[in-house]
Amino acid sequence: MIHLYTGDGKGKTTCALGLALRAAGHCFKTLIIQFMKSENCGYGEQNSIKFLYPYIEMFSFGRECFVEKENPSDIDKQFAKDGYEFFKRSVDEKRYRIYVLDEICVALDYQVIDLNEFIRLISSLDKNDFEIVLTGRYAPKELYEVADLVTEFKEVKHYYSSEGIMGRKGIDW
Amino acid sequence: MIHLYTGDGKGKTTCALGLALRAAGHCFKTLIIQFMKSENCGYGEQNSIKFLYPYIEMFSFGRECFVEKENPSDIDKQFAKDGYEFFKRSVDEKRYRIYVLDEICVALDYQVIDLNEFIRLISSLDKNDFEIVLTGRYAPKELYEVADLVTEFKEVKHYYSSEGIMGRKGIDW
Repeated sequence: MIHLYTGDGKGKTTCALGLALRAAGHCFKTLIIQFMKSENCGYGEQNSIKFLYPYIEMFSFGRECFVEKENPSDIDKQFAKDGYEFFKRSVDEKRYRIYVLDEICVALDYQVIDLNEFIRLISSLDKNDFEIVLTGRYAPKELYEVADLVTEFKEVKHYYSSEGIMGRKGIDW
Repeated sequence: MIHLYTGDGKGKTTCALGLALRAAGHCFKTLIIQFMKSENCGYGEQNSIKFLYPYIEMFSFGRECFVEKENPSDIDKQFAKDGYEFFKRSVDEKRYRIYVLDEICVALDYQVIDLNEFIRLISSLDKNDFEIVLTGRYAPKELYEVADLVTEFKEVKHYYSSEGIMGRKGIDW
């Protein structure tokens, strides 16, 4: 099955992490591939999932800075390409039951990964063999069509906007 | 801070689990109190969070069956009351940084927990000491007001509705 977690509300990546945690409780293996994110940003999950090895593994393909939508650098494009190739190899090897492609919607929207090729790939997989979770804002409408489950996360209120509180360690990262 | 994860979309409890997993990576302790759910239902998370002890602990207060909204039984009311008292004691003891009150919105909507008393309690807490995460459909509007962060999970598509696929082990429970 293909899940799509999109929208402007907080919780998309967090929800995918929770899915992996739940699945580990039934001995399902999850591979989390983070696009547009670096492994050097101190995300809490990068520490805690080590306790769940070999049921959850995570690899990050991105730099420690924001990517410019209009003009992604060659380095950003290369990171995205590497992450995508890594995903394709992993799927071929069938080592995992669940794949979380974190922030891939952003990578697709920024066109650092080709949307048509990506849709061809995930459409060709046997839905009984895999669970593929796509997260990120700006999901192209084509992803809504190919997904079996779509949840939109709607920001109704956020302490960032209403109270000026920035991302906090252990809660937001 | 008080978080509210509500709406009809899949992922509210899952998101709260992910938050606990992330927080554990920074050594923050989370207590998850499940309302209206039994610990005997085989939820994957009940197995996997054991690997994250003492950073995540979970206790369930409910039966292995659905609660009737119009006529909750005395047993259901007692479970909810026990869960609520357990939460109050835990907060007094300040043993955890994060409290997940899973499905409490349903318990409040079904009036097995008193809404006004609950709002008085969580409003009285120092927001710098605690993170309180409320999940469940049917959140009363008063919770939107008291919360610092509200995400509505909107079901756009679900394989349950569109493809008749029931909840699956390791994914939905």
